[in-house]
Amino acid sequence: MEIISNRSNPKIKELRLLKQSKIRRQTGLCLVEGIWHFIEAVEAWRRGGYATLVSVFYSPQLLTSELARKIIDEVQQQGVNCYPITAELFSSVAEKEHPQGVIAVVRPKTILLEDLNANQQDWLVGLVEPQDPGNVGSILRTMDAVGAKGLLLIDGGVEAFHPEVIRASMGAVFWIPVVRTAFQELINWAAMNNYWIYGSSSHGRKEIKSMITYQKPCILLLGSERQGLSQPQRSACHELIYLPMQGRISSLNLAVAAGVMLYDMLAKFSQENNQE
Amino acid sequence: MEIISNRSNPKIKELRLLKQSKIRRQTGLCLVEGIWHFIEAVEAWRRGGYATLVSVFYSPQLLTSELARKIIDEVQQQGVNCYPITAELFSSVAEKEHPQGVIAVVRPKTILLEDLNANQQDWLVGLVEPQDPGNVGSILRTMDAVGAKGLLLIDGGVEAFHPEVIRASMGAVFWIPVVRTAFQELINWAAMNNYWIYGSSSHGRKEIKSMITYQKPCILLLGSERQGLSQPQRSACHELIYLPMQGRISSLNLAVAAGVMLYDMLAKFSQENNQE
Repeated sequence: MEIISNRSNPKIKELRLLKQSKIRRQTGLCLVEGIWHFIEAVEAWRRGGYATLVSVFYSPQLLTSELARKIIDEVQQQGVNCYPITAELFSSVAEKEHPQGVIAVVRPKTILLEDLNANQQDWLVGLVEPQDPGNVGSILRTMDAVGAKGLLLIDGGVEAFHPEVIRASMGAVFWIPVVRTAFQELINWAAMNNYWIYGSSSHGRKEIKSMITYQKPCILLLGSERQGLSQPQRSACHELIYLPMQGRISSLNLAVAAGVMLYDMLAKFSQENNQE
Repeated sequence: MEIISNRSNPKIKELRLLKQSKIRRQTGLCLVEGIWHFIEAVEAWRRGGYATLVSVFYSPQLLTSELARKIIDEVQQQGVNCYPITAELFSSVAEKEHPQGVIAVVRPKTILLEDLNANQQDWLVGLVEPQDPGNVGSILRTMDAVGAKGLLLIDGGVEAFHPEVIRASMGAVFWIPVVRTAFQELINWAAMNNYWIYGSSSHGRKEIKSMITYQKPCILLLGSERQGLSQPQRSACHELIYLPMQGRISSLNLAVAAGVMLYDMLAKFSQENNQE
């Protein structure tokens, strides 16, 4: 196959357009850059994760990983379009300063609330209007570690497949169902499916250490970086938990707060399992 | 005072140079941008924090905060040089897209290991070669929340007063002593001062939930984002603790891992206090 070197090649133009959030939303596609994330996306596609591999762009000169090259051969045989491009063109397209030579176009699976099941997805995290893709990615990474089963992105905020979410999640975004929903819709659905909603809020009445156990199915709900949960959002929670804050600053980084809460839940779920 | 509008004004040149890490290191100065962080830096300077206010640049047109304007008047009367500059010039210097109209030049206090005291700074966090200033800032923010008493930056890594550390710390960097040190020097000092070193490592033998209590004075030691603690670094710890990881990814984001550990320590220190 001929190596693409022309910046105005239509495939390269399409690739470049996917750097825009608007185009990602319109097409339902996203970009996955780097060897690790490419391999995770292919794994997810093959083994029932939440991504479909659409096409691959690679620079034979830059891509030194034997494993990545082998995977490109395999997916090509499975019918995925794989385009070799020159190192120079690749570097002009890549986000990374020292690109590893592979970018995949991936179609994340669209998941709706109705696709979730209170028996299987019995532990969810809900983020209201999160603004920082690094936070959303870190939270997905923590959810992978503790075994939480789904992420709800509520009332907008960052896209789930923003390049920085993919990067910070270490690929967990391909393995954890992510649902976009509106707050009231979520609350109705949660009530119908008997989810217990734990809100994280500095206005909470229960300090985290007083939580003896958590019930399932449940949702851990966190507000945006700037505002936390609003009063109406707090009233929709069954319990409001706060973390002790002894210093000058009134809140934690969102991903840190979620991490502390999720590990507390994990510890207390496990205790319960041990007692059964 | 005349409003500076000229890009080649020597004061503006100096200000711009401080965007370079090399110049910050040479001069021992750093930049603090935005109203919140400016006020925190002034507070720290006034009330025994770890920052001295050197000079202030502000745009009378952009700076709408009454409080910030009042503080600028006060510090000017105390002898701090405050330079009004045009909105256009300010925007060309500011990092933020929508600048709030104030940047301060601040001299962080240099703190050495010898300045720390095992009675007062009885709970430290040590980071070996951290690479991400956002992580270091978030960890300082968590340290403020739990009441940890000092940060050790070991064997290089990001500067403590990188603009992104200041931002992510929400100003906590002005209130918590930060010491740069080398690993072996730290270990010797810790031994002499009877610090107990808790290492966070996936190679740890103790799962966090088996930790009944933590002793003081102590240091929570974490490795770099990429590598964690090396084998020799792990052997220098008195106890190695791990967080359960149930998913595909073998580690957490550094700030999340530190947050979970620090809140566990806080909970178990408090229990001990209650029992006394």
